[in-house]
Amino acid sequence: MHISEDERNAVYKTIFSRRDVRGQFLADEIDNEVLMRILTAAHHAPSVGFMQPWDFVVVKEPETKAKIKVGFDVAHAESAAMFDEKRSTQYKNMKLEGIMEAPIGICVTCDRSRTGDVVIGRTVKKEMDVYSAVCAVQNLWLAARAENIGLGWVSILHDAVLRDALNIPEDITIIAYLCLGHVSAFKDKPELETAGWLPRRDVHSTIHFDSW
Amino acid sequence: MHISEDERNAVYKTIFSRRDVRGQFLADEIDNEVLMRILTAAHHAPSVGFMQPWDFVVVKEPETKAKIKVGFDVAHAESAAMFDEKRSTQYKNMKLEGIMEAPIGICVTCDRSRTGDVVIGRTVKKEMDVYSAVCAVQNLWLAARAENIGLGWVSILHDAVLRDALNIPEDITIIAYLCLGHVSAFKDKPELETAGWLPRRDVHSTIHFDSW
Repeated sequence: MHISEDERNAVYKTIFSRRDVRGQFLADEIDNEVLMRILTAAHHAPSVGFMQPWDFVVVKEPETKAKIKVGFDVAHAESAAMFDEKRSTQYKNMKLEGIMEAPIGICVTCDRSRTGDVVIGRTVKKEMDVYSAVCAVQNLWLAARAENIGLGWVSILHDAVLRDALNIPEDITIIAYLCLGHVSAFKDKPELETAGWLPRRDVHSTIHFDSW
Repeated sequence: MHISEDERNAVYKTIFSRRDVRGQFLADEIDNEVLMRILTAAHHAPSVGFMQPWDFVVVKEPETKAKIKVGFDVAHAESAAMFDEKRSTQYKNMKLEGIMEAPIGICVTCDRSRTGDVVIGRTVKKEMDVYSAVCAVQNLWLAARAENIGLGWVSILHDAVLRDALNIPEDITIIAYLCLGHVSAFKDKPELETAGWLPRRDVHSTIHFDSW
């Protein structure tokens, strides 16, 4: 199947305009058909040995979100204490999640035992199943952006909070908690770049040829 | 920036037609501009705390590829012995890599100490930097597909083989070794699905609401 130049440009437009959204969520519901398209795209991520180890827990109940928000607040306070004084002040003033505002949360998990002990491609590199689930997150993120839906990955959260709030079994690995919703706008640049926290690296500095 | 319906459909077309390519690589060189576009797309993956922890080692030298191919053969033989007899025979007959045939290899790495010890968003979930580098792999994969370039992820390889062949420092985490090239064709379905190794899960069975 051939991808045309226009189609290629659409993929790049989506990749380059994808943002981690925290403060721009609108209350409008996400259409069920849109959500199903996004999750189907996630489900078509690459997976080691075709094990498709992911699950998606869609969170809509305000009480469930509230439990997760409390968990964020705890982890956020712990985290603030790890930075030096100047950075800690800047950190505390950043909006880092939209758990309550986003109409939908999605917890992405990985069932490492889904297809048995021996998995093609995971025999040597044991973390490949977890990496497959992360690829599903990135497919989900790009599909959401292509639907003009914002997404923010909330990683300042202890796994135990999500496990408890969403009844996730002990043997299931928690990969990500994502907030999704329509947005007032997508920012032009990553917020941490705009805030001067860190600069964008020059892409050429990331590339080596045949040897590090 | 608004994504139109045509652009959205192009993203889905790319996501659904992306394949793990092993046996369809052509010898034709990948244009340097195309390679730079693909790597720039990878570089615009999400990264925790904007740390951009990835590097890309582009492999073109046949001698370097040959070292990696020997490493694959060793790991592949070890792996074959892990399956039961019937599966082991099927496994040994599968084409699982195109290391020598693909004009370009790319090793994707993660520098976990790139921006210091304390990283926004990695304070609680320590694996977030590695997950960022995996998101870069998935961006790279989709950008390649959008350029009609095939990509195969070779995970049947000990990290030490890549570290040695590519002079990757000990403190750098090895994420992936990818083979890229033009292809004779993209398969309609994942090869393991076609071979009856495992079926595609029903997407509805992967979705839960508010509770596992």
